[in-house]
Amino acid sequence: MQGNTFGRIFRVTSWGESHGAALGVVIDGCPSGLHLTTEDFLPDMRLRQGGEFSFSTARKEEDFVQIESGVFEGITTGTPISLRVENRNTKSQDYDAFRDTPRPGHADLTTFWKHGHRDHRGGGRSSARETAARVAAGVVAKKILHSQGVEIFAFLSKLGKTTIDTDFPNLYDHGTSQFMELLPTLRKLRNKNPLRCLKEDSSELLDQIEQVKANGDSLGGEISAVALNLPRGLGEPVFDKLNALLAHAYFSLPAAVSVDIGGGTKMSELYGSEIRDEIKQKGCDIEFGSNSHGGLLGGMSTGNPLWSSIKFHSPTSISQTIGSVDLKTGEAKGIQVEGRHDSFPLPRAIPVVESMMAVTLADATLANTSSKFK
Amino acid sequence: MQGNTFGRIFRVTSWGESHGAALGVVIDGCPSGLHLTTEDFLPDMRLRQGGEFSFSTARKEEDFVQIESGVFEGITTGTPISLRVENRNTKSQDYDAFRDTPRPGHADLTTFWKHGHRDHRGGGRSSARETAARVAAGVVAKKILHSQGVEIFAFLSKLGKTTIDTDFPNLYDHGTSQFMELLPTLRKLRNKNPLRCLKEDSSELLDQIEQVKANGDSLGGEISAVALNLPRGLGEPVFDKLNALLAHAYFSLPAAVSVDIGGGTKMSELYGSEIRDEIKQKGCDIEFGSNSHGGLLGGMSTGNPLWSSIKFHSPTSISQTIGSVDLKTGEAKGIQVEGRHDSFPLPRAIPVVESMMAVTLADATLANTSSKFK
Amino acid sequence: MQGNTFGRIFRVTSWGESHGAALGVVIDGCPSGLHLTTEDFLPDMRLRQGGEFSFSTARKEEDFVQIESGVFEGITTGTPISLRVENRNTKSQDYDAFRDTPRPGHADLTTFWKHGHRDHRGGGRSSARETAARVAAGVVAKKILHSQGVEIFAFLSKLGKTTIDTDFPNLYDHGTSQFMELLPTLRKLRNKNPLRCLKEDSSELLDQIEQVKANGDSLGGEISAVALNLPRGLGEPVFDKLNALLAHAYFSLPAAVSVDIGGGTKMSELYGSEIRDEIKQKGCDIEFGSNSHGGLLGGMSTGNPLWSSIKFHSPTSISQTIGSVDLKTGEAKGIQVEGRHDSFPLPRAIPVVESMMAVTLADATLANTSSKFK
Amino acid sequence: MQGNTFGRIFRVTSWGESHGAALGVVIDGCPSGLHLTTEDFLPDMRLRQGGEFSFSTARKEEDFVQIESGVFEGITTGTPISLRVENRNTKSQDYDAFRDTPRPGHADLTTFWKHGHRDHRGGGRSSARETAARVAAGVVAKKILHSQGVEIFAFLSKLGKTTIDTDFPNLYDHGTSQFMELLPTLRKLRNKNPLRCLKEDSSELLDQIEQVKANGDSLGGEISAVALNLPRGLGEPVFDKLNALLAHAYFSLPAAVSVDIGGGTKMSELYGSEIRDEIKQKGCDIEFGSNSHGGLLGGMSTGNPLWSSIKFHSPTSISQTIGSVDLKTGEAKGIQVEGRHDSFPLPRAIPVVESMMAVTLADATLANTSSKFK
Repeated sequence: MQGNTFGRIFRVTSWGESHGAALGVVIDGCPSGLHLTTEDFLPDMRLRQGGEFSFSTARKEEDFVQIESGVFEGITTGTPISLRVENRNTKSQDYDAFRDTPRPGHADLTTFWKHGHRDHRGGGRSSARETAARVAAGVVAKKILHSQGVEIFAFLSKLGKTTIDTDFPNLYDHGTSQFMELLPTLRKLRNKNPLRCLKEDSSELLDQIEQVKANGDSLGGEISAVALNLPRGLGEPVFDKLNALLAHAYFSLPAAVSVDIGGGTKMSELYGSEIRDEIKQKGCDIEFGSNSHGGLLGGMSTGNPLWSSIKFHSPTSISQTIGSVDLKTGEAKGIQVEGRHDSFPLPRAIPVVESMMAVTLADATLANTSSKFK
Repeated sequence: MQGNTFGRIFRVTSWGESHGAALGVVIDGCPSGLHLTTEDFLPDMRLRQGGEFSFSTARKEEDFVQIESGVFEGITTGTPISLRVENRNTKSQDYDAFRDTPRPGHADLTTFWKHGHRDHRGGGRSSARETAARVAAGVVAKKILHSQGVEIFAFLSKLGKTTIDTDFPNLYDHGTSQFMELLPTLRKLRNKNPLRCLKEDSSELLDQIEQVKANGDSLGGEISAVALNLPRGLGEPVFDKLNALLAHAYFSLPAAVSVDIGGGTKMSELYGSEIRDEIKQKGCDIEFGSNSHGGLLGGMSTGNPLWSSIKFHSPTSISQTIGSVDLKTGEAKGIQVEGRHDSFPLPRAIPVVESMMAVTLADATLANTSSKFK
Repeated sequence: MQGNTFGRIFRVTSWGESHGAALGVVIDGCPSGLHLTTEDFLPDMRLRQGGEFSFSTARKEEDFVQIESGVFEGITTGTPISLRVENRNTKSQDYDAFRDTPRPGHADLTTFWKHGHRDHRGGGRSSARETAARVAAGVVAKKILHSQGVEIFAFLSKLGKTTIDTDFPNLYDHGTSQFMELLPTLRKLRNKNPLRCLKEDSSELLDQIEQVKANGDSLGGEISAVALNLPRGLGEPVFDKLNALLAHAYFSLPAAVSVDIGGGTKMSELYGSEIRDEIKQKGCDIEFGSNSHGGLLGGMSTGNPLWSSIKFHSPTSISQTIGSVDLKTGEAKGIQVEGRHDSFPLPRAIPVVESMMAVTLADATLANTSSKFK
Repeated sequence: MQGNTFGRIFRVTSWGESHGAALGVVIDGCPSGLHLTTEDFLPDMRLRQGGEFSFSTARKEEDFVQIESGVFEGITTGTPISLRVENRNTKSQDYDAFRDTPRPGHADLTTFWKHGHRDHRGGGRSSARETAARVAAGVVAKKILHSQGVEIFAFLSKLGKTTIDTDFPNLYDHGTSQFMELLPTLRKLRNKNPLRCLKEDSSELLDQIEQVKANGDSLGGEISAVALNLPRGLGEPVFDKLNALLAHAYFSLPAAVSVDIGGGTKMSELYGSEIRDEIKQKGCDIEFGSNSHGGLLGGMSTGNPLWSSIKFHSPTSISQTIGSVDLKTGEAKGIQVEGRHDSFPLPRAIPVVESMMAVTLADATLANTSSKFK
C-alpha cells in the first residue's frame, strides 16, 4: 500500500532514495497565483545542510531544487509542482558491508521484512536524506501561509534530557502580537547559533556534544515549533483535529519518539482549574485570559500561538561496534558504522520540523474554506 | 471539509452528537467471514461506562450497540457495518446556560468560529460521548487482530504527574511470549481496579482523587497501551509510518496532549549506544537483544511488543466558576458547570485508547498485504 | 478494501442491505448553515417510489428519512449528517430459493466469489433498494447547489433503442437562461408523466411496455441529466476532470452500461470543424457560439448547460425460467424470479440519477474553492 | 484541490506541462520484487508516438523514460517509483498567438477561468503530451497484471461513426482461452496496421482520413479495450465498482466523450431475457452460457473477457480559421492552429487507453486482497 503522500487538499508526494539519481516531491493542490522561484528554496535547504557550521555534518552535498512543472514565468499555475533535487557526493561503497547485514537501530531489518528487496545504500528510502524533499515542499507551504500572515518558527529546546533555557523567558506565555514583534530577533539569534537554540552563548552545550562525539556516541533531544497568527477554527474533528494532523506529520519524521501539541504534557499535570483559559470580551472581539491550551481547543485553532514539540531519539549510526547478523548466511557479524555521521543532527532538523508544520497548516487552511455555508 | 473518517482499507466513519437521537459508526472495508454479534460489544462498552464502579461516572446511560448492516446470520459479509447506539438519559436542559456562552477549556468557542451554528447540548459533537462509537469500531478491529493472534492492552500509567508503579516490574522489558503469558492476569487485575491501573491496592490514589473532587477540581494523567504479537513490517513509510498513524489516532481523542510511541521520551534522553537493540540469530529466526525501540524500527513493526502512551489534560468541566462571554450580547458571564462530570475520567478512557490502537493496527495489517510481489 | 464512500470534500458513505433493519448514508463535509428537515426528503423519495403511478412498481414500502445527527434546530452544523431509512414490507422468504443458487444476470455469483458469505435476501447490498440512500444524499447536495443557483434535471430519453422525442424540440441547443425559464414547465410535465419523459402523451410507449411485461420480459433504456447555471472551472484535471467524476458516479449505479458526458457520442461522429464552439465577446463577458461540447472543455465546466446520459440494461429479474447451479450441491437448477419486479424500472431511477449528478457537482463546487490564490 | 492522483493502493501521480523541462509520474504502492528496466518502456512509448508510421504524427520527440527511484538493481523495492520523460523538440513560439487568445474547443478558456494564470504553450497541462506519463505508469501496471496472467488489449473500433469490421468475426463472443490463443496474432496485426485496427487492409479508411486532412479538418472515433483472464470478484461496490473505476480512468483522457463498459449500449437495447448469461456447472467450476454482460456482474469481474470502449471527439486543433477573443483587450480574433497536428490521433491513443485499463485493474487486483477474512 502507498504511504508517501500527505495532505488532503495540498497534497505532497515524496519520492527518492539516498543514493539514487535524485529525489523529489510532487505538490498537487497548490493554488495558482503564488510567486515561486528556485531562489526561494535556498535558505531552508541551506539551513537543513547545517548552514555555515561545519559542526553539524561531515557530509557536504549542495542541494539545489529544480522546479520541473507547475510554475510558469515565476508564478504557480495550479497544476502539480514537481520539485527535484539531484543526489551528488554519494559514497555508496561505504555501505557495502550493510548489504546483507542490517544495522541495529535502523529500518534495514524491518524494510527487509516488509519488502524483501531493498536499496541498502545510505539507508535507501529511510535515510534522513529524504527530508530534503520535505523541506522543499515546506517552502511552498510557508509561502501560502505567509500570504495569510501566518509565521512558523522552530528551535532546539532540549539536548538529551536537558531543557535549554532561552534568552527570552516566558516565551510560551507570549500573545500573538508580542511574539510577532519578537520574531525577527529570534530568527536572527537562532540562525547564528550552531545548535539552533535561542541563546547567545551555547558553549557549554557544544562542549557536551563534543565529549559525546569523542566517545563515538550520540545524543537526542527536542525541537519546539510554534505557528503564529493562525486563522481560528482550523482542523476537522473528530479524526482530523489539527493536533492529530500535526502529530501524524511529526511522527513521520525519522527518529521521532514523542510529540506534545498545544499545552502538552504540563496540561496533564495541572489541575483542571489551572488550565481553563478564561474567555473575555476585548472590544468587538473575544480573547483568552491565558494560552494554557497552547493555541487549540477541541482540536481546532484558537488564533493564539500554536505550540508543539517533538522529541527525537539519539542517532544509532555511531562508530561503536554492535552485533548483527548476515541475513544470507545467518552468521553473527559485528557492525561499525564509519564515516560522515552526526553525533547530534537535531540542528539540521529545524527546517524539516518547520516544513512538516507548514505543510500541515497550509493544507488545514485550504481545507477550512468549506466549513460554513455562504 | 470532512474529517470523521479514519483508516485506508478498514475505514471507520463516526457520526452523532451527545444529545441527538443516536450516534454511531460505519465500518467500511471489514473483510467478510468474521463472527460478530451484539454481545461482542458488551464488555468494552461497559468498561467505557465505568463497569461496576459508580466512582467513575455519575451519568448512567446503558449503551447497547445495534448492528444495522454488514452482518448476516452472525458473520460479516464484507459490506459496510453500520453500528448504532441510542442516546438515552440526556438532560439537555442542563446545557441551556451554555447555548450562547462558551465554556472555557472546551470546543464551544472554536466550533462556533468554525461553523457558526452548533449543537450546544452536552458539548454536541465534541462530547466524549462520541467515543462510544469508537469503542464499537474497536471491538470489530480487535476481532480482526485477534484472529491474527494480536492482542491489545491498555492501562492507567500516570495520575497527574505521578507515575503509577505496577505490581509487575519491568513490564516494558518483557518479550512477546512472556507478556502473552502474563496477559490474562494483567487483564483481570486491571478490570477489578477502579482506576484501571496494574495494582492490587490503589487506595492512596483514590484518596488523592477524592480530595481533588471535594475541591471541585479535576485531574489528568496518562494511559499506556501495548500491542503484542504484531506481524513484522506493518506501516508505510515515509508518511504513513505505523507510529504516525497511531499518533494521528491518539491525538484525535478528546483532551489528548502528548503521545509517546515505541521507545518514547526516554529514547531522546539516552545515548545512541544505549538504544541500539542488537540483532541476533535465534534458531532459524532473528531476535533483538532488547526492545529499546518499543516495537518499531523506521516506522515499521518489529514483532516485539509495540508500546505507546497518551497523556490527557485534566477535565475543564468542573464546578468552580470561571469567566466567559455571552456571544450574542457581548456581556461577561460567570460559568459554573454543574452536574454529572468526572473529576478523573481516564479509567473510562481505557477501552477508548484500546479501540484507537486496534482500529489503526487492523487497518495497517490489511494494508500490508500488498507490500511484496507474489 | 472499502468502496462505499464517494466524494472528496462532500463525502457520502452508504450502508445497508435490502432486507436488513435499515439502510442509510452518512454525509461528512456538508457546510454548516444549510436548512434541512425531514420534509425536504419527501418529494425525491416519493419520485423514487414511483409517485402516484402504480405502474412503476409492485413493491410498496413507504420510505421516510430520519435525520440522526448533524442538524440542530433545522440547520446543518457542519458535523456528519446521518440519514436513516427503515426497511419495511420486506418478504425475505421470497428469496429462499436463491440462498445457494445465484440468479443469472445479478451480482449474486460475483459477490459469492468476492466475499464467500453474503446476504442473499433481496439481492442484499446489490439491491436497487440501496439507491434510497443515494437519493437522500442527493437531496442535501441539491440544497447546496440550489443556494448557488444551480439546478439539476433528469428525464427518460430512450426506451430500449427508441429515442423518445420531447414536446420541446432542440432542448440540447438551449442556453442557460432559456433553459432555466423552461425548467418549471419541464418539471411539471415530467412529474405527471408515468415514464418521466417530456411528453404529454406517452400511451404508445406504455403499450409497448405492457406488451413486454405480458411476455414476462423487461426493457432497458436511457436517462438524460442536465445541470444548469454551474460555476465555470469546476473539475480537477488530469484525473478528476468533471466528466471523470460524473462517470464514476453514474457507473456506480445498478445496471449502468454506457455513459455520455458533455457533447457525447455525436462529438465523435462529427468533424472537428463542426464542434469547435466559437468564442465570442458579449458585453463584459465571454460567450460561446454553440454548446457542442455540452458544458465542458478540458474536463472543466464552461457555465453552459452540462449534459450527460446513462444507459441502463434491461432488468434480469423476470418471470421466465433460466438455468443456474446450486453452489452447495453442484446441481443444475432452473430459476424463476417471481414477485414484485419492474419490467421497466427506469422511471423510478430519475431521482437516483439526479442524486448522483448533485452529489458529484456539490463536491466539485466545494473542491473548487481552493483553485486560485487569494 | 488536487486531482492528479489516481488509484487507491497502486497510486499514480502525474505531473508536467507540454513545454516544460520534463513530465513524469510517481507510482506509489507498487509491490517490491517486480523486474523493471528502462527498456520495458520502449514498446508502448513508441506505439504512443506512432511507431513506424509517419502518418500518425508530424511531431517527433523521442521519449525515453528515466527511472529515478523505487528500483534497485532492476527490481522494484516497494518505495515510490519516479518516472521522468524530458520534453525535447518543443516549439513554444508556435503558441505565442494563443497566450491571451483561447483556442475554441480546448481547455484554454476553462483553465483561465479556474486558475487565472496558466502555461499557454502547447496546451500546458491539458496537452495530450501528458499521456506519456500515463503510458509509463501503464507499463508498470501491465507487469503486475502480467504476473497474474492478465492481458490487456486495445484496438481501433470506429472511425467517426463507421464501425470498423475486423478480420476476426465474433470477437466479442470469444471466451477467455479462445481469446488468449488468438492474442499474439491480434497484437501483430494491430501493430503493423497504421490505424491500429484489426484488419489486413485499411486502405479505404486511410483514404477517408487523407481526404479529411486535405480539407484541414479532423475525425474522431472509438477505441475498444479488453482485459483477459482477470481474477473473479474485482471491484468494490457500491461506489467503486470495477466499471465505475474504469469509467473514471477513461473519462480522464483528453477528448473522451462516451464510455461503454461490460455489455455496453446493446444491453440497454435488448430484452432482459436476452442478456441473462445462464450459469452452468463445468467440472468442478462454474461457467456462463454467454458473456452478454461483458465480464462484469454487479460491478465485479466474472473472469470472462472484460470489454470496454471509449469514444473520442474529433480534434479541435485544425487549420481552418475560427473566431475567438483576446482576453486582455476584449477584441475578436480569428484563430488558425497551424503546425504539427494530427487529423486523426486515435491510433496513437491505443497504448494510452491500455495504460488506463492496466492502472485501474492493477489497483483493483491489489485492493481485492482484503475482501475475505482468512
